[in-house]
Amino acid sequence: MDLSEKIDMIGRLHIGLDQIENCMEFSALIPQVRTNFVYASKESTDPEDVLAVDGRITIVDKHPQAAGKIKFGASGYMAHLILEIRKEDPEIRCAIDFANSPEIVDFLKDYCKEKGWILSIVDRRLEPEEIIDQEGASTPWEVAEAIQAAGGKIPKVFCETATVGKEPVSVLVGKDPLEVAEQICELARRYYGSKQT
Amino acid sequence: MDLSEKIDMIGRLHIGLDQIENCMEFSALIPQVRTNFVYASKESTDPEDVLAVDGRITIVDKHPQAAGKIKFGASGYMAHLILEIRKEDPEIRCAIDFANSPEIVDFLKDYCKEKGWILSIVDRRLEPEEIIDQEGASTPWEVAEAIQAAGGKIPKVFCETATVGKEPVSVLVGKDPLEVAEQICELARRYYGSKQT
Amino acid sequence: MDLSEKIDMIGRLHIGLDQIENCMEFSALIPQVRTNFVYASKESTDPEDVLAVDGRITIVDKHPQAAGKIKFGASGYMAHLILEIRKEDPEIRCAIDFANSPEIVDFLKDYCKEKGWILSIVDRRLEPEEIIDQEGASTPWEVAEAIQAAGGKIPKVFCETATVGKEPVSVLVGKDPLEVAEQICELARRYYGSKQT
Amino acid sequence: MDLSEKIDMIGRLHIGLDQIENCMEFSALIPQVRTNFVYASKESTDPEDVLAVDGRITIVDKHPQAAGKIKFGASGYMAHLILEIRKEDPEIRCAIDFANSPEIVDFLKDYCKEKGWILSIVDRRLEPEEIIDQEGASTPWEVAEAIQAAGGKIPKVFCETATVGKEPVSVLVGKDPLEVAEQICELARRYYGSKQT
Repeated sequence: MDLSEKIDMIGRLHIGLDQIENCMEFSALIPQVRTNFVYASKESTDPEDVLAVDGRITIVDKHPQAAGKIKFGASGYMAHLILEIRKEDPEIRCAIDFANSPEIVDFLKDYCKEKGWILSIVDRRLEPEEIIDQEGASTPWEVAEAIQAAGGKIPKVFCETATVGKEPVSVLVGKDPLEVAEQICELARRYYGSKQT
Repeated sequence: MDLSEKIDMIGRLHIGLDQIENCMEFSALIPQVRTNFVYASKESTDPEDVLAVDGRITIVDKHPQAAGKIKFGASGYMAHLILEIRKEDPEIRCAIDFANSPEIVDFLKDYCKEKGWILSIVDRRLEPEEIIDQEGASTPWEVAEAIQAAGGKIPKVFCETATVGKEPVSVLVGKDPLEVAEQICELARRYYGSKQT
Repeated sequence: MDLSEKIDMIGRLHIGLDQIENCMEFSALIPQVRTNFVYASKESTDPEDVLAVDGRITIVDKHPQAAGKIKFGASGYMAHLILEIRKEDPEIRCAIDFANSPEIVDFLKDYCKEKGWILSIVDRRLEPEEIIDQEGASTPWEVAEAIQAAGGKIPKVFCETATVGKEPVSVLVGKDPLEVAEQICELARRYYGSKQT
Repeated sequence: MDLSEKIDMIGRLHIGLDQIENCMEFSALIPQVRTNFVYASKESTDPEDVLAVDGRITIVDKHPQAAGKIKFGASGYMAHLILEIRKEDPEIRCAIDFANSPEIVDFLKDYCKEKGWILSIVDRRLEPEEIIDQEGASTPWEVAEAIQAAGGKIPKVFCETATVGKEPVSVLVGKDPLEVAEQICELARRYYGSKQT
């Protein structure tokens, strides 16, 4: 990517990350494996073209907090996922992962319906054994499954089912970190509110 | 606990944590759920009596790095685990968790044999369904299983088998953070070395 | 400023700051009062329009390190300085301050000559007593003095003389953080090299 | 020092530092050169025997925040100062520096009187020219002056007058970081309160 794209990407991810760090309610949605927030360049082909949070976003003092800085190449799994999605729709270049439990999936079903968003649930138990644990092989299958489950469209939110040895996560995608941060923070505040009542 | 015990505990965990942050090879043993390093007070009865790393230890710039500060009450699962173990042997008050894969388990079998350490493998698929996901109920079962598998003794290293929706981890225990840090760093350097050849 | 300017400013300051944090030699030029690195928006009129490093850049583990994040409004003195300079030349919107000693001033004289840069030395002992210590009043005087000393032009580097109760600093200005970071890091490496021989 | 002294020192400075970081009012007393908080070992003879905050304590998000970790050898000036004081009274091994302005000096005069503390004002304009800027030579003179000004006793609080090129600071000393943290936080809250009225 050229310098002006790099500046634009860093500026957007920085602002989006600030918003997430200031959203205390998102702490309730950070999974055990923690959260990454990734943004792929326009012509991205490998994880080095994907901007992400080094050390992921964790919970410190009850608030979401980036462990390190934003850097190109700082993500593996989430970078592969967004690269795969971008191949299908070049407009979708940003993603964030978050927790996934039966309670959260129920919430997401209602929330996505209300928002008019496509929610796709990927059954990872169907994943062919020969590709499991192969970062580069597993994500194309997962994205293809998610799109198929959504009738050929790219879903706004993905949930995977639990599988042996892996904590299941949810993923929300969008065009850039400003959009994704705003949407995930609104979702987090709503989820948090729903648990208080 | 009284002030002098608190000072002593913080001093020891601080020094042990420094040692781990300086052990680059430990990065290869940090699981997706990240590592916690916990130290229970002499009369500990609940997680508030357990000193731990707020936000856990993650990988930043390829090195282990504490996300937040050391604090009493900053751990859930690992705090319950050490409390349970301390009940069986009041001398064992410190624990660290780390990655677990078939490759790591094979390495641990040889390494523990060489060290004369008891290694105990807990089959979490045997866990009674009614206690799964209940932090306070799951750890007593796990510790009891580990001790039984070790013929009634407290093992030095525990490994759990993978279960649905959970990344399996390994745990090393000891009397204090200085002992545990030294042992886990030596183990990490040996494991790292074994992968280079 | 509008969103696209904000994104652009944050992206540029983030990249420039990364460059400075990776320039170990700059540590030798961080003054006791630490360094700030500021970037004013196009239509900036007050410190809230100036992006800066919260908590300044300090030395940790012998390397330059930002204490906090980059934020609008995070600087006082340096923000006033760049606002004053921008009034004279709207192209100059970025500045960094660094150490100032007789040895550094001697180095700067040679270095600026070689680079063809204007160096201006402001004698703060001439500062009218009624404006001393008044952030908003002191900087217009200082900038006016610097420009006058440079024969009406805006100097590339300013040095102030020591005054009672104030550590003197040097300042390098430029159009944006990418330019300023590159220039200050080259200067720092040269200064560091000159001290080793 | 032996391991048990090291553990004790780190535990105490860690707890004291936590207290200061949680004392928002202390932000108003952090000087431009920032604050260090130092603790010398019982047999300390050089800065490597003095525990201090790497990168000092700065203001981030309006709160006091340590830039780096606590480390032996992380301070120069403040380490020399406490070493010099410890020579005079082996019980006094801890010190913190903070801001100094005419307003603060006035406050300290009243506050120290109320507390029954000795306050000593060192006139740095009297410092012999040949030792200025020589860390190892300047502090013995400064400490000797402070003690002389206090009629042969070690003062609880020192203030220095402003001198050319140096921001004047104040220093509070005590036996250990718990005592010093408690005293400086109480002082800070009182000073902060006095400015609100």
